[in-house]
Amino acid sequence: MEVYLDNNATTKVDPEVFKAMEPFFCHIYGNPNSLHKFGAGTHPKMVEALNYLYEGINAADEDDIIITANATESNNTVLKGIWIDKILNGNKNHIITSEVEHPAITATCRFLESQGVSVTYLSVNEEGTLDAQQVKDYIREDTALVSIMWANNETGKLFPIKEIGEICKEAGVPFHTDATQAIGKVPVDVQATNVTYLSLSAHKFHGPKGVGALYVKKGFELTPLLHGGEQMGGHRAGTVDVASMVGMGVAMKLATSKMALAYEDNHVRKLRDKLENAILEIPDTIVIGGKENRTPNTTLISIRGVEGESMLWDLNQKTIGASTGSACASEDLEANPVMNAFGSDSELAHTGVRFSLSRFNTEEEIDYAIEIIKNAVTRLRNISSSYAYTPKNHVSQL
Amino acid sequence: MEVYLDNNATTKVDPEVFKAMEPFFCHIYGNPNSLHKFGAGTHPKMVEALNYLYEGINAADEDDIIITANATESNNTVLKGIWIDKILNGNKNHIITSEVEHPAITATCRFLESQGVSVTYLSVNEEGTLDAQQVKDYIREDTALVSIMWANNETGKLFPIKEIGEICKEAGVPFHTDATQAIGKVPVDVQATNVTYLSLSAHKFHGPKGVGALYVKKGFELTPLLHGGEQMGGHRAGTVDVASMVGMGVAMKLATSKMALAYEDNHVRKLRDKLENAILEIPDTIVIGGKENRTPNTTLISIRGVEGESMLWDLNQKTIGASTGSACASEDLEANPVMNAFGSDSELAHTGVRFSLSRFNTEEEIDYAIEIIKNAVTRLRNISSSYAYTPKNHVSQL
Repeated sequence: MEVYLDNNATTKVDPEVFKAMEPFFCHIYGNPNSLHKFGAGTHPKMVEALNYLYEGINAADEDDIIITANATESNNTVLKGIWIDKILNGNKNHIITSEVEHPAITATCRFLESQGVSVTYLSVNEEGTLDAQQVKDYIREDTALVSIMWANNETGKLFPIKEIGEICKEAGVPFHTDATQAIGKVPVDVQATNVTYLSLSAHKFHGPKGVGALYVKKGFELTPLLHGGEQMGGHRAGTVDVASMVGMGVAMKLATSKMALAYEDNHVRKLRDKLENAILEIPDTIVIGGKENRTPNTTLISIRGVEGESMLWDLNQKTIGASTGSACASEDLEANPVMNAFGSDSELAHTGVRFSLSRFNTEEEIDYAIEIIKNAVTRLRNISSSYAYTPKNHVSQL
Repeated sequence: MEVYLDNNATTKVDPEVFKAMEPFFCHIYGNPNSLHKFGAGTHPKMVEALNYLYEGINAADEDDIIITANATESNNTVLKGIWIDKILNGNKNHIITSEVEHPAITATCRFLESQGVSVTYLSVNEEGTLDAQQVKDYIREDTALVSIMWANNETGKLFPIKEIGEICKEAGVPFHTDATQAIGKVPVDVQATNVTYLSLSAHKFHGPKGVGALYVKKGFELTPLLHGGEQMGGHRAGTVDVASMVGMGVAMKLATSKMALAYEDNHVRKLRDKLENAILEIPDTIVIGGKENRTPNTTLISIRGVEGESMLWDLNQKTIGASTGSACASEDLEANPVMNAFGSDSELAHTGVRFSLSRFNTEEEIDYAIEIIKNAVTRLRNISSSYAYTPKNHVSQL
């Protein structure tokens, strides 16, 4: 049996999404900017897709949704647009973010620091989230942007977006949120949360890879990251990838309907909890950040005495796909920065394993995974040089 | 009959390309950065695709080919990378380009000018190209980059890339070329031409939209446009769109094999010439820039007394797709900048119609198109308020 439990890294394209994309490769292939019917033939489904995107995040008609290549591009567009408009060509010089953002935020912030920008990385608490009040405390006269993720990719932990949105609005500071891990998992509503910019990526909710979006509240337009043609109202140049845009729209519709979100919150959550509770029956295991206030599909579990990478190896032998954290950082073997942020001791730091489910997982798969995981823990602890010496049960479950 | 003659705007995905892409949507869908078999399962075809890209442009093993969303992103990566590395954080301040580049270059250069960068836009001559000597004349002590397209999107005119490459190498200035309109039409060899950076876009040679590449010669790495994960060796963050990358690779193989280039140069050229010669039988028609030294698939024809937009309308009624110029600029009705650059008088400026063929066009289609075009010219000249008063035959064919 193959069990894919790494849906925060990427997801399978929903066959219904693929079906919607298919005509746009070899048949309706015109350039949407062309004036003839080959071009215009792409428009109806593009409009439909855009409507699904607006509905999916409850954007107002007057706001912009810009189609990008991925959330990384969306994030770079916001951070570098703010840099150019408000810092290089303005009188601001400060950005607030958290220390557990995706590399698309943190690496970009490190770059901006190299260019003289002041960046505050807010720490997360033991529960893996932050108090909105922290944002308020750090806002300065010269703060150009606050960028805080909606949900963490490694723990699934939800951040207090509504409260941060209110604080930023009051302070007159634009608020960006990377909602890549939230779409399709929890309701996302840009109007209810005073969000100024929001990034998302289709391949995290059963859309295709290579396409994402950036929500921009009316009046907060930025210098584009991609200059060129007049696509996206001049806000993002480059021939629109029609197939991918249509696919993202359908994926958004399928992920954010009331029924889809209810299914996620009930069925997917139930499977995640079943998996998690079965693992927690093993001694010396904890859920990093605790069980509260998470996306329904994610659990990051630390299994003392078991190196995360070894665990993945055992699981992979049995065709179970999981992760030690973000796929975007998985090529290096540094301790998981999220676990460091949570203050795990160095021994625990390498023991995190993330399981992230999707609506395509079945109970049968979870039962199979539980059996394999338990066997793997036994095997790996038996060969562990350190585990036997570790005092048992000294870590309380957070 | 439907006849698509707008292949410089975009192309149909080759069914063989689509077939290669298909498994990567719903079946082999892992994130290539993931360590498990769902991720690793994507690698063999990605490696194959990358090999096709290296072979297609004759890149050296030690050089980089970075997968991007499109040539617009590739172009922005080079221009803004140079800006950040050599101008903002260096002692250069000058870029040389031509006045007939794609908007992805010219709009980016305009932006850089707004940031204090000095840009020289070289004029083209009556034949729509430039002397390499011009580049030499304008290189200064503080020149950070020369960016000249390989082939013009509107006329198909080829630029003296080899000569410019030599001049830049001698002067120690990096040389970027936007080869978007050259791939699959003429041989492109980065080593034989001393090119430092080269941009390309898959959807111009029967690959999918939403994916392109940037060639970077070893030793000329730039600050990335997209910061984030470690994809592409840290040079371009964002989850790799496996399906599109694989599609681009296969499309490159199909477009740049010796047989494919020979077919383009013989069969496609023959069809283009047949179409062009038939139109030139109509009085007061000229090929903009003349017939020499062009890609084999393109002709930009001016038909005096016939507004380009009206012509497109008539053609569209008979399901023939053509263009007045770049699709990326087709939403505005300004006179075609390429025709302006060629020094056309203002009356001619709006009369350009571009026909761009592909290997999928047939002789039957061209015969049909010729008939429709002739009828359209007759009809439109009959209702033209200015054509009757125009002295005949005063424009010699260039």
